[in-house]
Amino acid sequence: MDGIRSGNTIGKPIRCRAAIAREPRKPLVIEEVIVAPPKMHEVRIKIICTSLCHSDVTFWKLEHPPAVFPRILGHEALGVVESVGEGVHEVVEGDTVIPIFLADCGECIDCLSEKSNLCTKLPFSLSPWMKREETSRFTNINGETLYHFLSISSFSEYTVVDIAHITKSDPAIPANRACLLSCGVSTGLGAAWKTAKVEAGTSVAIFGLGAVGLAVAEGARLCGAKRIIGVDVNQDKFEIGKKFGVTDFVNSRNCGDKPVSQVIIEMTSGGADYCFECVGLTSLVHEAYASCRKGWGKTVVVGVDHPAAMLTFNSLEVLHSGKSLMGAFFGGIKPKTDIQILQKRYLNKELELDKFVTHEVEFEDINKAFDLLLEGKSLRCVIWMNK
Amino acid sequence: MDGIRSGNTIGKPIRCRAAIAREPRKPLVIEEVIVAPPKMHEVRIKIICTSLCHSDVTFWKLEHPPAVFPRILGHEALGVVESVGEGVHEVVEGDTVIPIFLADCGECIDCLSEKSNLCTKLPFSLSPWMKREETSRFTNINGETLYHFLSISSFSEYTVVDIAHITKSDPAIPANRACLLSCGVSTGLGAAWKTAKVEAGTSVAIFGLGAVGLAVAEGARLCGAKRIIGVDVNQDKFEIGKKFGVTDFVNSRNCGDKPVSQVIIEMTSGGADYCFECVGLTSLVHEAYASCRKGWGKTVVVGVDHPAAMLTFNSLEVLHSGKSLMGAFFGGIKPKTDIQILQKRYLNKELELDKFVTHEVEFEDINKAFDLLLEGKSLRCVIWMNK
Repeated sequence: MDGIRSGNTIGKPIRCRAAIAREPRKPLVIEEVIVAPPKMHEVRIKIICTSLCHSDVTFWKLEHPPAVFPRILGHEALGVVESVGEGVHEVVEGDTVIPIFLADCGECIDCLSEKSNLCTKLPFSLSPWMKREETSRFTNINGETLYHFLSISSFSEYTVVDIAHITKSDPAIPANRACLLSCGVSTGLGAAWKTAKVEAGTSVAIFGLGAVGLAVAEGARLCGAKRIIGVDVNQDKFEIGKKFGVTDFVNSRNCGDKPVSQVIIEMTSGGADYCFECVGLTSLVHEAYASCRKGWGKTVVVGVDHPAAMLTFNSLEVLHSGKSLMGAFFGGIKPKTDIQILQKRYLNKELELDKFVTHEVEFEDINKAFDLLLEGKSLRCVIWMNK
Repeated sequence: MDGIRSGNTIGKPIRCRAAIAREPRKPLVIEEVIVAPPKMHEVRIKIICTSLCHSDVTFWKLEHPPAVFPRILGHEALGVVESVGEGVHEVVEGDTVIPIFLADCGECIDCLSEKSNLCTKLPFSLSPWMKREETSRFTNINGETLYHFLSISSFSEYTVVDIAHITKSDPAIPANRACLLSCGVSTGLGAAWKTAKVEAGTSVAIFGLGAVGLAVAEGARLCGAKRIIGVDVNQDKFEIGKKFGVTDFVNSRNCGDKPVSQVIIEMTSGGADYCFECVGLTSLVHEAYASCRKGWGKTVVVGVDHPAAMLTFNSLEVLHSGKSLMGAFFGGIKPKTDIQILQKRYLNKELELDKFVTHEVEFEDINKAFDLLLEGKSLRCVIWMNK
């Protein structure tokens, strides 16, 4: 463990602890690992805290490719720059940073456009390697290669991340708040703010009040939505939802013979202006599409279903309804610019992040974070690396 | 035939000629019919000219409901108000008017909103009757009821139309130009202008260069699109398309092993900013979706497929692509306001309508108009009632 606390680690491998997913659905194992120094365009980060997101759980459960083992999961985090590789000028040692699974190279047509957050140079991939050079920076002490996850792998005291996957964090923001902007909360906020562009005075329906769905509610609240209807099978979510601006609740198990869409159409005299599917079920996307207002309703797909899941719409309905369908990948958030805006809004006390953190554990107890999420008890559980 | 040319017909039935569809796919038969006076909220119109639209042909071919016979087809037209029913103040006898198959009641939330063109009070329907009171204004001289079509039935020297389905036409616009704004050309123009909101300097791909597809090109040209790619199986369409602003042509039969989407992606270095499906084939909607630019591409469904046709998309692709899918029913055009804007743009010599009219026939030869459209020879064939 010397590497961690010794003074000058620059250019040297660091020996530290990481939580390794060795088999699907088996508890992570905290092991000693060797984290190589950052190569060109890379940054080595000391993780301060990381929070558990559903995508970590999805890839932990998955038995087939693109799942690979042994792997260091984790992608929602806050860290401090330990050292930088050649060609990195944007951050220096000691900078507080938010790593982000989506790249922002700052050079390609998408990164230069205000309309896209889908970097062309370093596109999203489920590759288990560093992106520019398909290798790993992680080995265990026996020399076994450990795979990366979503370009981040934050379930490690140190990790190596491409500079395109990093944005600076204002040190005034507590680590266990800033880390939320790394993935799930930004996705939901962005789905309302950037993808749907929710207008003031409108109505919003959110299918699924997990952390992402509640972040959609928070985003809709910030955009000035008048009515925010939460849909969930868990009645407790209404009380929770109220803190996030949810004004009305539909328990989809208590709708009797009526489809949820019919209930929402009646509540809103015609349908919600914006509908967000945050569970990851194609059947709910259809219900969301049916729930949104003819003439101008927007349905936004936020939840991730399995890779072969198909959405089917009647062609004439698409033509005649005047509705639109869109996807919100990372909520349309541009990693380097929009996360800065969200940080300012947090510091201005407009954006509320505290309420997303329901649990905090130490790194040793990382598997508790999995249990809490699997049991539906947590929204976000923050895992502290060295509290 | 006295009724037509006699002086005061107000309040009386008018006996005149109409082209009746008596059986699917059989030539229309010009017969004498009795057109009842307009009831409350209705207007009786003397049709000056009418043009043949694909929807007329679709319902002429259809053997099962919602097709009904005997019926007076036709819905793209220009006329002069002969008389008005009770409660009609918007137009008076002698006004030149464009009848429109989509209603604009001016009172409901949709008609009052700038975002919708889908009137809630008098919604689009394929009903063969007048909308507010489910009856017909047409009988033949033996008392046989003749069905209405799309609230217009313009293949008659006189017809009765609800005031919600009428907008005034500037008499300075020739009848055989103004009638085009009644349906197909407005649909295409609107798909680019109102639904997709094409931005200047962008790229557009249009699948199907019939009249509607060419109207999309004209709309995209007016919006300042830089590149307009026409896709068709007919090579002749490129020369025709050039007149409408088409800059590039893809003959989908000459793409070898490549899907059209791949060709378009290569031509545009990533995909067209906007793609329009104007044929009415779900397979082409998928090709259009695949052709549009990740990050911000919009795919607009304009063509009408059969009622059971389904569009299927991979859920993850919708989520990850940043693309959106929308429908353009009557191109998002608001009948009473947007048609006025299009008329002004025509009078300002910005919008070009002349090039859409490839043929003109007299009413007696209405079946020639069908032949020309079926043979793919005409874009718009204008039928003059009493030239």
